[in-house]
Amino acid sequence: MPVLLTAPHPESLKPVAGVRIGTAMAGIRKANRRDLVVFELAPGSQVAGVFTSNRFCAAPVQLCQRHLAAGGPIRALLINTGNANAGTGADGLVRAERSCAALASSMGVEPGQVLPFSTGVIMEVLPVERLEAGLPAALSSMSDAAWFDAAQGIMTTDTLPKAASRQLDIDGRTVTITGIAKGAGMIHPNMATMLGFVATDAAVAPGALAGLLKTVADASFNRITIDGDTSTNDSFVLVATGQAGNTAVGDFSAGDGARLRDALTSLAVELAQAIVRDGEGATKFIAITVEGGRDEAECQRAARAIAHSPLVKTAFFASDPNLGRILAAVGYAGIADLDQGLIEMHLDDVHVVTRGGRHPAYQESDGQRVMKQAEIAIRIQLGRGPAAATVWTCDLSHDYVSINADYRS
Amino acid sequence: MPVLLTAPHPESLKPVAGVRIGTAMAGIRKANRRDLVVFELAPGSQVAGVFTSNRFCAAPVQLCQRHLAAGGPIRALLINTGNANAGTGADGLVRAERSCAALASSMGVEPGQVLPFSTGVIMEVLPVERLEAGLPAALSSMSDAAWFDAAQGIMTTDTLPKAASRQLDIDGRTVTITGIAKGAGMIHPNMATMLGFVATDAAVAPGALAGLLKTVADASFNRITIDGDTSTNDSFVLVATGQAGNTAVGDFSAGDGARLRDALTSLAVELAQAIVRDGEGATKFIAITVEGGRDEAECQRAARAIAHSPLVKTAFFASDPNLGRILAAVGYAGIADLDQGLIEMHLDDVHVVTRGGRHPAYQESDGQRVMKQAEIAIRIQLGRGPAAATVWTCDLSHDYVSINADYRS
Repeated sequence: MPVLLTAPHPESLKPVAGVRIGTAMAGIRKANRRDLVVFELAPGSQVAGVFTSNRFCAAPVQLCQRHLAAGGPIRALLINTGNANAGTGADGLVRAERSCAALASSMGVEPGQVLPFSTGVIMEVLPVERLEAGLPAALSSMSDAAWFDAAQGIMTTDTLPKAASRQLDIDGRTVTITGIAKGAGMIHPNMATMLGFVATDAAVAPGALAGLLKTVADASFNRITIDGDTSTNDSFVLVATGQAGNTAVGDFSAGDGARLRDALTSLAVELAQAIVRDGEGATKFIAITVEGGRDEAECQRAARAIAHSPLVKTAFFASDPNLGRILAAVGYAGIADLDQGLIEMHLDDVHVVTRGGRHPAYQESDGQRVMKQAEIAIRIQLGRGPAAATVWTCDLSHDYVSINADYRS
Repeated sequence: MPVLLTAPHPESLKPVAGVRIGTAMAGIRKANRRDLVVFELAPGSQVAGVFTSNRFCAAPVQLCQRHLAAGGPIRALLINTGNANAGTGADGLVRAERSCAALASSMGVEPGQVLPFSTGVIMEVLPVERLEAGLPAALSSMSDAAWFDAAQGIMTTDTLPKAASRQLDIDGRTVTITGIAKGAGMIHPNMATMLGFVATDAAVAPGALAGLLKTVADASFNRITIDGDTSTNDSFVLVATGQAGNTAVGDFSAGDGARLRDALTSLAVELAQAIVRDGEGATKFIAITVEGGRDEAECQRAARAIAHSPLVKTAFFASDPNLGRILAAVGYAGIADLDQGLIEMHLDDVHVVTRGGRHPAYQESDGQRVMKQAEIAIRIQLGRGPAAATVWTCDLSHDYVSINADYRS
């Protein structure tokens, strides 16, 4: 059961001018399941992407990077679930290329203008012939109103589709942003492939989109435990079609640019948090803030050490305020000269730790009250500087083990 | 159920001349449970220790380091379970000091000649008055034959006591080595405190023991996933009483010194592997070897990434050959210029991956056959150099979640 998360209403997802979406049931892994999604992007669209840093990155990730680096206009995104085409060697690359070529041929564009994405089981051969056979159905279903279908079509172990829209005014023009994402493994930044696709009809100055994407990703998808050192297939793509007709925005530090950045960030945070809320077996949503660090990097490190600790996560699952486990995680986060005597810890409003030890007024019943909530905030103060960072994670339950032990069956 | 592990026979544990052991039920956390262990070391004994690198290291760890650094002869080890005295601030240090003073006073030595060790729940006040009240019973039970009792007395979530002995000849003298250890959390190098105490009656040259200890630890306790960046209380102590009467050994690279080193290492490996076999909820024992690295450090990094991956561990629990998860872990292990096209993987004798993709002859039924075994060897070849490293770990089961969700109840 996802934590305080519901499926979006299909009608709440606004079309983005310049983006059409088609889906199909291609039987990639299972029959009668929407598993193929095609985004068609109007001429003039700009596209930027960030990808996993995993050295075992999947064949489609390698192709995406190659096609984006070539600099030509991207005209389509091609996404399949059921098979990640990762750990598939040279043959995997050939199959990913073949899938791009098939779509490009149908659309009358070049293969290098297609970005491919795959998610699902790894180290199995991509059944590219089934993908190809599904393309006509996907292309014939093209519509600007298929965002909900697309959100469903990229799911793996997600229990709910994840999608959201925002609208804002720029230059008196209504700018629309709509995005979808999928998770949903949570415990460690591991094989739980995260895909995110966000499109806006805003006009963005040439060359400015990649920087905007990075800013948005660092404030959203890079703050959940699926990120960075991660899966073979993680990808987050931002499309700007320019069809809203606003004056192109290039500075995102103030004015209209900052408002566009904030709207994109707000949407990406909603999608990123939805991934956590729908984490495999999740029963709690946990926001971990580490303050008082020398720089943001060490705050992130400490927050991630807490977020990745199975002992912390199982304690939250059990609503057991065994909170020393959090201190232990801070202690091994790699902050070499950390002074444990300066550490403070709050659980929501409950002051649990002062000067590195149990707060004299702390009552275990107060800790337990907070632990039983579906949403919990952990706040750690390091007492060594002005920086802070927040990450979002979930607990570790029996269902996590069941889901991952049985994933392929 | 531990994996292919049985309790040692008490009579197989050989007394070490110069070491006497007393135990008691002090009611530190629970009544009627052996939870206090005192080692009395004869004058002339040398003692060396390695401790957790956790910045939130427990009060007893801080005292051990201080007492060892002072250089005076250590005459006693004082160990309690039930409470880790970690995350307890300045008060925790006072209580640890008080426990050392109480034992020192009873034994007629200085408080600085006592090394204290605690394991159990963290962030709770050490009931030092109960520990003190238990000392007379422990001291009156002193015997050189109480190694089995000591192994029981340091257990927390361990299901079996862990102890072993070795004997070898040096200079025509019989040298004895006996040790005990406790685990038993496994999943991440986390709060699962590991304690190891090994004593020998061999005579070791002054100043040589610390180097020997480090060599032994690096080949044993530092190869299981509980280590290094770890718990608040992890400690491994080596005692050499010198009472075997051999010529003192100082060079451990050849001859008698190397034989002593090998016997100590063999015993420490047995204890370390016993901790893994009795890992919380463990159903499989997994040896992960990474070969073909540029240096041992990167091999260790890759092996640990595999060993720490909850997705890998749950797949092993389920005997599900979802082996791409292993490749993914290698990919995010932080080897920046890793070439996935060079990777080979074997599961025992089954060649699963060649050139970074599925081996053409690999059959999933072969992978599954190996996955169903209680002991499994994973072998990865990186294809970039001559170095290798092995780590030992276990799978992640439903019982791990149950044990850690309910640890304190």
